[in-house]
Amino acid sequence: MSDESIARIPLRLLTIVAESILEDRLVREILALGASGYTATRAHGQGSRETRASELGGNVRIEVVLDESLERELLARLTRDYFPSYAVIAWSQSEEDVRGAKYRRTR
Amino acid sequence: MSDESIARIPLRLLTIVAESILEDRLVREILALGASGYTATRAHGQGSRETRASELGGNVRIEVVLDESLERELLARLTRDYFPSYAVIAWSQSEEDVRGAKYRRTR
Amino acid sequence: MSDESIARIPLRLLTIVAESILEDRLVREILALGASGYTATRAHGQGSRETRASELGGNVRIEVVLDESLERELLARLTRDYFPSYAVIAWSQSEEDVRGAKYRRTR
Repeated sequence: MSDESIARIPLRLLTIVAESILEDRLVREILALGASGYTATRAHGQGSRETRASELGGNVRIEVVLDESLERELLARLTRDYFPSYAVIAWSQSEEDVRGAKYRRTR
Repeated sequence: MSDESIARIPLRLLTIVAESILEDRLVREILALGASGYTATRAHGQGSRETRASELGGNVRIEVVLDESLERELLARLTRDYFPSYAVIAWSQSEEDVRGAKYRRTR
Repeated sequence: MSDESIARIPLRLLTIVAESILEDRLVREILALGASGYTATRAHGQGSRETRASELGGNVRIEVVLDESLERELLARLTRDYFPSYAVIAWSQSEEDVRGAKYRRTR
């Protein structure tokens, strides 16, 4: 199989870490904005505004692959509705999606 | 300790998310191709072709640190044998391995 | 909300994978060096120096967002005290912190 048959699409990988109790609400917002999916893992840890989260039911680590435009919208939502009130942190990275069509904006 | 004693080798970090039932098969392929290791975490989530995976036994998130040549081979394998048939997604990122020798191709 | 209101600070994301038994010790060192937090997830896997870790109580995957100076210090510590003796691996990536103030060095 030639390498040319593998699509590599430059996209963003946004990782959000929040208290587990926020997972359902965050996921609804992520999908409502138009992301085609997400990956969630159970996590624990400590942040500058958090007490040790493992004592409080734990954290969730949500990864979303998305384009720059959708990322801007999601970050605006986090900045407005989550960062002021909750121990939510997020970081953004460049990545190459190796499946392309799956991560296109669906709305 | 001087910073020069810390080796930083530019490599790729490939993250694969698949149904948990595929983990053993994927891991066998990853190691057979020559990767020296992998890191797996339990995950759940939703993708454009998936139903909510947590209802189906969950997902596994597999990370593999590898060089570009091996990454091409692994992506070719995923493209040929997994993407057409399974709800497998993957993304690739640049990284700096800070231990060097561990991730060299072993075959 | 304008995009300008979202702070994006270029930082490093260091991911450390180690035997679970090392988690408390690693976390104490990470915080003592001045990192403002970390995110930990349960993991399993295989590396070139490890037996299959899931048979031995599992691994922990620790993520730390930090600046370059602090990363150098933490890597020096890993190189001196962990890499020679334990099945610890680590990789470093660039990322954009989208919350800024949280990850500043606190000491």
